[in-house]
Amino acid sequence: MVSTTYSNGVLPYIPFFYVIWADDLLSASEVQVIKKAVESDHSLTPQDKTRLRSWLVREKPPKDSEVKNWQQVITDSNATLIESENYPLEAFSRKVAQFYCDTCAPNVHLQEIEQNLGIQPNHYNHLFNVEVVHQTYSERYRPKEIDRILNRNFIADVESFRGFLNQGIFNWEIIRDKEKARDKVLEQVKVLAMDGWGALAYPKTYGGKGNIESYASIFEHLMYVDGSLGVKFGVQFGLFGGSIHNLGSKRHHDQYLEAAGKATLLGCFAMTETGHGSNVRGIKTTATYIHGERALVVHTPGKNDNKEYIGNALHSTMATVFAQLLVDGKNRGVHAILVPLRDENHKTLPGITIEDNGYKLGLNGVDNGKIWFDQVKVSVENLLDNYGGIDKNGNYRSNIKNPNKRFFTMLGTLVGGRICVAKGALAGAKMSLAIAVNYAMKRRQFNDNIKMQEDLLMDYPSHQLRLIPKVASTYVYHAVLQKAMHEYAVSEGDKRKIETQVAGLKAIITWFSTATIQECREACGGKGYLLENRIADLKNDTDIFTTFEGDNTVLLQLAAKGVLSGFRAEFNSGGFISVLKLLGSRISDKIATINPAYSNKVDREHLYNPKFHLHALDFRLRRLTYTVAMRIRNYIKKGVPSYQAFLKTQTHLLELGKAYSDALAMKWYYEFVKEVDDKEYQELLYQLGALHGLSIIRKNASWYLEQGYLGSTKSKAIRQRVERLSTELRPHAKALVAGFAIPEHLMTAPII
Amino acid sequence: MVSTTYSNGVLPYIPFFYVIWADDLLSASEVQVIKKAVESDHSLTPQDKTRLRSWLVREKPPKDSEVKNWQQVITDSNATLIESENYPLEAFSRKVAQFYCDTCAPNVHLQEIEQNLGIQPNHYNHLFNVEVVHQTYSERYRPKEIDRILNRNFIADVESFRGFLNQGIFNWEIIRDKEKARDKVLEQVKVLAMDGWGALAYPKTYGGKGNIESYASIFEHLMYVDGSLGVKFGVQFGLFGGSIHNLGSKRHHDQYLEAAGKATLLGCFAMTETGHGSNVRGIKTTATYIHGERALVVHTPGKNDNKEYIGNALHSTMATVFAQLLVDGKNRGVHAILVPLRDENHKTLPGITIEDNGYKLGLNGVDNGKIWFDQVKVSVENLLDNYGGIDKNGNYRSNIKNPNKRFFTMLGTLVGGRICVAKGALAGAKMSLAIAVNYAMKRRQFNDNIKMQEDLLMDYPSHQLRLIPKVASTYVYHAVLQKAMHEYAVSEGDKRKIETQVAGLKAIITWFSTATIQECREACGGKGYLLENRIADLKNDTDIFTTFEGDNTVLLQLAAKGVLSGFRAEFNSGGFISVLKLLGSRISDKIATINPAYSNKVDREHLYNPKFHLHALDFRLRRLTYTVAMRIRNYIKKGVPSYQAFLKTQTHLLELGKAYSDALAMKWYYEFVKEVDDKEYQELLYQLGALHGLSIIRKNASWYLEQGYLGSTKSKAIRQRVERLSTELRPHAKALVAGFAIPEHLMTAPII
Repeated sequence: MVSTTYSNGVLPYIPFFYVIWADDLLSASEVQVIKKAVESDHSLTPQDKTRLRSWLVREKPPKDSEVKNWQQVITDSNATLIESENYPLEAFSRKVAQFYCDTCAPNVHLQEIEQNLGIQPNHYNHLFNVEVVHQTYSERYRPKEIDRILNRNFIADVESFRGFLNQGIFNWEIIRDKEKARDKVLEQVKVLAMDGWGALAYPKTYGGKGNIESYASIFEHLMYVDGSLGVKFGVQFGLFGGSIHNLGSKRHHDQYLEAAGKATLLGCFAMTETGHGSNVRGIKTTATYIHGERALVVHTPGKNDNKEYIGNALHSTMATVFAQLLVDGKNRGVHAILVPLRDENHKTLPGITIEDNGYKLGLNGVDNGKIWFDQVKVSVENLLDNYGGIDKNGNYRSNIKNPNKRFFTMLGTLVGGRICVAKGALAGAKMSLAIAVNYAMKRRQFNDNIKMQEDLLMDYPSHQLRLIPKVASTYVYHAVLQKAMHEYAVSEGDKRKIETQVAGLKAIITWFSTATIQECREACGGKGYLLENRIADLKNDTDIFTTFEGDNTVLLQLAAKGVLSGFRAEFNSGGFISVLKLLGSRISDKIATINPAYSNKVDREHLYNPKFHLHALDFRLRRLTYTVAMRIRNYIKKGVPSYQAFLKTQTHLLELGKAYSDALAMKWYYEFVKEVDDKEYQELLYQLGALHGLSIIRKNASWYLEQGYLGSTKSKAIRQRVERLSTELRPHAKALVAGFAIPEHLMTAPII
Repeated sequence: MVSTTYSNGVLPYIPFFYVIWADDLLSASEVQVIKKAVESDHSLTPQDKTRLRSWLVREKPPKDSEVKNWQQVITDSNATLIESENYPLEAFSRKVAQFYCDTCAPNVHLQEIEQNLGIQPNHYNHLFNVEVVHQTYSERYRPKEIDRILNRNFIADVESFRGFLNQGIFNWEIIRDKEKARDKVLEQVKVLAMDGWGALAYPKTYGGKGNIESYASIFEHLMYVDGSLGVKFGVQFGLFGGSIHNLGSKRHHDQYLEAAGKATLLGCFAMTETGHGSNVRGIKTTATYIHGERALVVHTPGKNDNKEYIGNALHSTMATVFAQLLVDGKNRGVHAILVPLRDENHKTLPGITIEDNGYKLGLNGVDNGKIWFDQVKVSVENLLDNYGGIDKNGNYRSNIKNPNKRFFTMLGTLVGGRICVAKGALAGAKMSLAIAVNYAMKRRQFNDNIKMQEDLLMDYPSHQLRLIPKVASTYVYHAVLQKAMHEYAVSEGDKRKIETQVAGLKAIITWFSTATIQECREACGGKGYLLENRIADLKNDTDIFTTFEGDNTVLLQLAAKGVLSGFRAEFNSGGFISVLKLLGSRISDKIATINPAYSNKVDREHLYNPKFHLHALDFRLRRLTYTVAMRIRNYIKKGVPSYQAFLKTQTHLLELGKAYSDALAMKWYYEFVKEVDDKEYQELLYQLGALHGLSIIRKNASWYLEQGYLGSTKSKAIRQRVERLSTELRPHAKALVAGFAIPEHLMTAPII
C-alpha cells in the first residue's frame, strides 16, 4: 500500500477533480451536480466533504501545485483506463483509489457525476500519463434503428429499393466519355422504370402508387449510384412525367403518363432559355394559336431564346416546352406544350434543332442540350391545359383569372422537383461524410513522441470540428426535407406557402451540401482527390444544384418576399406590388428587449435547450423582417421607385431569406424529434439538434452581438459548446454516418 | 421657366441632398464636407445657407415630404443623367437647376462635394425617375498600367512569356482521356523547356537566369493554359530540378541540372507516402548505406510505405527519393537520393514498381503515380548531400549538427514551391474572376416593369458583394506573393521565418482561391458549369492546392507555432519542445485597453485608413498569441503532457495561424502600395486594400465584438462600408480584372 495525503474517501474523487480543473470544464450548473453528489455520499467524512467543497469554488480554483499533485497520484497508481467500461472514469478512479487503499468500492455518486456531466473518455483520456485501452467508437446506437427513425413511413419501399439496386448495372465505375456515360445512365433509367420505380408518384391507374413521399425517399439513393442517374431519373419521371401529371388533363394522362413512367416515352422539360434562366416569366419562346387549324406554332424568336441545359434532350422523343401563349394577339403568359422532337427512327423532326451542351463540370452522364424551334406546328390538344386552355371557339379559358396567380400555381406544382434537388444534394453530403468519417477512423498521422502509434484523424479536435457539426446538420436537414415533402404532398390548391418554404430550404441545404462535400474532400487529403474514392464525383455532380431548379440567390429573395407579405405575395412577379401593399399594415416590431441576464446565460441546460435555439433563430427572423421592411418603406416614402427600393435592400433580403429558412428548419426538426418514441435515440437527436442550432447561431454571432441578443460571454460559451458537443459526439461518429444507411454495395470507396 | 419654392442658389443642391437623404449616406465626416462647401459658396444668400444647413442635421433629418418634394423637382426637370461626365451629379444638378432658372452656372463647390464624398453614378442613378445614359464601366484606369505596377520588376520576362504562349500547342481544349491529356502536357513542358523557361531559376551555367522571382511570375501564366501544365512544369523544374539545385552538390549540378532544365532528363519528387503525407518526418522508406560497396539501398518496408501521388511518375527516368538515411545502424533522418527509375527504353528498372494513381478530380494531364522500391541499390554519389553526406570512411557528415535543424533547413529550400502553389491557386482565382466579371457585364436578367431592357448582373448589389471584395483580395494576395518570393530569394541560411510566413500565406490564399472560384462558378449559373467556359477546370485543377505541398490545416499550425516561438522553433518537430521553452519568457499582453471612442469610431476616413486595418489585424494577432500561450501554459502547469496541451488548443492555434497570415498579408500589401509612384493608381490600390481589410475584419467581427474591440455601431458600419466600397469600385470592375493581364489568346471562354 502506498500512502498519499488524501483520505480514502477523497481518493476516488481525485481523477474527477483533475479532469474538471485541468480542462476547465466547470460551469455553475456543473458545480451543482458535483456538490449534490458529494453531499449525498455517506462514505465521506465531514472533513472530506469540506475539502472537496473547497475545490469547487470557481472564483478560487485549486492551486496549480494541487492539480499537479492529483496528476501525480493518478500516474503513480499505474491504473489502466478502459474506455469501454460502462462508467469508464468512475471505474478508473476506483482503480486509482484501490492502489492506495483496499477498501474502496464502486461509488454510485461518482457514476452519477459521470453521467450528469456527460464527460466522455475522449475528453480526458489524454490528460493522464497512464495506459489507455481505447475504444475508437461506441456501439451504443444501432445504425439500423437510426435508419428506421429517419425513414419511418417509407421504410418498406426504401429497403426494397436498396435491395433492387444491388445488381451489376448499378455498380459504380469511372466513365470519362460522355456518350458511354449517357448510354449507361439511360440503361439504368430503363431498368428502374420497368420495375415501376419511376412511376411511384403517379396514380395507380398509370402504373404508380400515388406516393410522392416514397418517390422522394427512394430518389436520394440514386445519388449513391451516380449523380447523373439521379438527375436523369428526376428529369424523366419528375419533370417530364410530372409536368404531364400536374399540368395536363386526363386526356394527356391517358395518352402519355404510363409510357412516361415506363420510360418507353422519353421526354424532357424545356423551360430554361439561354437568355432567361432565373427569370422564367421573361422567356421568349412563343406558342401562337392558329384557330383555323386548331394548332399551336412553337417558335424560337431570337438568338438567345433557344432552350438550354435541357436534360434528356438527346434521348427524348418529346418535350414539355414552356412558351408565351399567344391567343388572338394576346399574350396569356407562360404555358406548357407537349412538342414531339423526333420520329420513330430517332431522327429530329422538321423545324427542330438540337445541339449537345457538351462536357460539364459534372453530370456527364446526362445529355443536356439546346433546342431551337422553327415554326413548329402541333395540335392545340398538346397544350397542357389543366390551369389554362383554349376552347372550341378559340377563346382562352382558365379557372384562375389572375395571370400572376395562374403562373405561380403552374410553377407551384413543380415544387416537388426542388425538394428532390435538395434531397439529392444532401445525399451527396451524406455519402461524403460517411467516407470522410470512416477514413478518419482508420487514418493516422502524427503522434506524441512517446507513443508508437500515430493518432487517428478523428481524434484531432480540428477534425471533429470540421466534420461532426456537418453530420449533425445533415440529420436536421434530412428530417426537414421529409417534412417538406409531406407538407407539399398534403397541400391543396394554393401552394404559395410551401413554395416559399421550399425555395429557402433548397437554397440553404444545397449550399450546405456543397460546403460539406468540399470539407470532406479536404479532410481526406490526396485520397479525397482520387475519383475512385467517390467524393470528387459527388462534388462535381451536386455543384450545379446551387444554381439550377432555381438559383439560390434568387430563391432566397423569393423566400424573403414571402415572409414580408405573409406568404400572400405573388412572388414570381417582378413588381413586388403585393409585397408593398401588405408591407404598410404588417410592420410592427413585437420583439421584447432582451434581458441582460438572458444574453449572458451560459449554463449547459440553457445552451442545449431547443427553446433557446428556436428563440434565437426566431428573434433573428422577426428582427430582420422588421428592419428590412422599415428600410423599404423609408425608401418608398422618399419617392424611390419600388423596384429600386428592393434592389437597395437586396443583401438585407438575402439575409432575411436565410434567417427564415434557418428558423423553419430548426422548428421542423424539433417537431420531428418530439415524435420519436425511443427516449435514448431521441436524446441523441436532441444533441444533434443542439449542435446544429448552436452552429447556426455561431455563424451569425456577429449579428447577435451587434443586436445585444448575445453578450460576449455567451457568444464565447457558444463557440466552446460547439467544440465540446463535437467532441462529445465523436464516439458516435461512426454510428451516425452508418445511420444514413447507404447500401454497402454502393459504398465502393477503397479508402474506407 | 417653371417655378419652384426653391431659390436659384439652393436649386443645384437639391439632387445632392436628395441622394444623401434618400440613401442614408450621411455620416459625421460627410456633414463636414458639405457644410464646408456651403460656407464657401458665395453664390448663396445667407437665407440659402441657413436653409441648406437646416437639412444637414443628422439627428433631425428633413421630413419625408420634403425629400419627396425634391424628387418631384428633379423628375419634373426632365434632365438626363449622363454617367460619363467628369462630375456626373454636378452636371446633372446644373441641368435640373437650369430647367427652373437660366442663370445657374457650373458650381465648383458641388464638384468638390462630389469628389470628396466619392459618390458615384451607380450609387444614385436609380434614385431619380429620369433618363440615364449609362456608362457600364469607367475607363479611368488603364489595365496595361495596372499590369506594369503589379509585375514591375519582371515585366519584360512576363511579357515575353505571354507572347511565347501564343502558339497552337498552348491552345486550350477538352481532353477527357488521361493518356491523351498527359501526352499533350508533356509536349508543352518540352516546348517550354527548349526555350529556356524551365531553367529560369537555375544558375546561368546551367542554362538559366538565376532568377526565381521571374520564374514565379511566369509560372502563374501556365494556369491560364491548363492547370495540369502548371503542376507538371512545377514538378519537373521546381521540385525535381529544384531538389538537385538546392539539396545537391556541384557534381549533381554538373551532371543533371542542365538536362533537368531542358527536360531531356525527366524526373519526379518522391516524398509523400501513402502512410505519411503531412508527417514527412515519419516517412518509412529507408536508404541504407553499405560501406563495402559505397552504395545506398533504397527500400519500401511496408504496405503503406510506398510513395504516392508522385507527379511525373509515369514519364520520369529518375526520382528524387526522400528516405530515412541509415548509416552504420544509425538513423540520420530524412535525406534525398537520386534514384534512376527507367532505362533508355523507358522500361522500369529492377526493383522498381510504378502504378498509375488513376483519374482524379482534376489535373488529369499530370501522371501521378505510386512507386515501390524493393532493395534498389544506387551509388552513394546519388545522395543529394549539400546538407548531409557520407565521407570516404563511411562516416556521416553534416555542417548542421542538430538533426531537427538539418531537416527543416532541407525542407526550407523548397519553400519556393509552396509560393508557386499559392500563385497557381491565385491565378485560378484571377481567371475565374475575369470570366465572371466580364459575364456579369454582359448578362442581363430581370428588370423593372417599366423598362424594356433587363438589368446587368453586375448592377445587382448582391452580385457586386459576391465578386468585388474577391477582386480586391486578389490584388492584395498578388502583391503579397510577389513580396514573399522576393523575401525567399534574398533569404540566406536560416529560412525559418520565411518558411513560417509562406506556410500561413499558402493556406489562406489557396482557401481564398477555392472559395473565389466556387463563387465565380455560381455567379455564372449554368454557363459556369460548362467546361467550355473554363471555370470548371480551374476549380477542379486548383482544388488539391489546399491539401498538397502542405495540408492547410497543418500549415496553419506550423505558422502558429512559429509565432509562439518568435520564429525560432524547429517547428517541423512534433515535440513542440522549443515552443514550450520559449513560451515561458515571451508571454506578455502588451495590448492597451481599447478606448470606447475608438471602438465606436465610424467615420469614413477612419474606416478606410490603412492604419485602422493594420491595427485591427495586429490586435487580433497579439491577443490570440497571448490567450493561446496562456492556455498552453496553464495546461502544462497542471501536468497535462505538452503534446496534449497543443491538441487541446488546436482550434485556437488554427485561428492564430490565420490571424498571423491575415496581418502579414495586410502589412506587406500596404508596403507595396506605398511604393507605387502614380498617385491615381495608388489611390485605387488603397481602395482595394480598404475593401480587403474591412472584409477580413468583418469575417472576424464576432471575435472583435466579443473582445470589445468593435462596438455594435462600428461593426454595422464596417458591414455597410464593405457593401458601399463594392459599389464604389463597380465602375472599375472591368478594368480591374483586365489588370490581371491574362493574355487574350488564352481567355477562350465563349461566355465573355
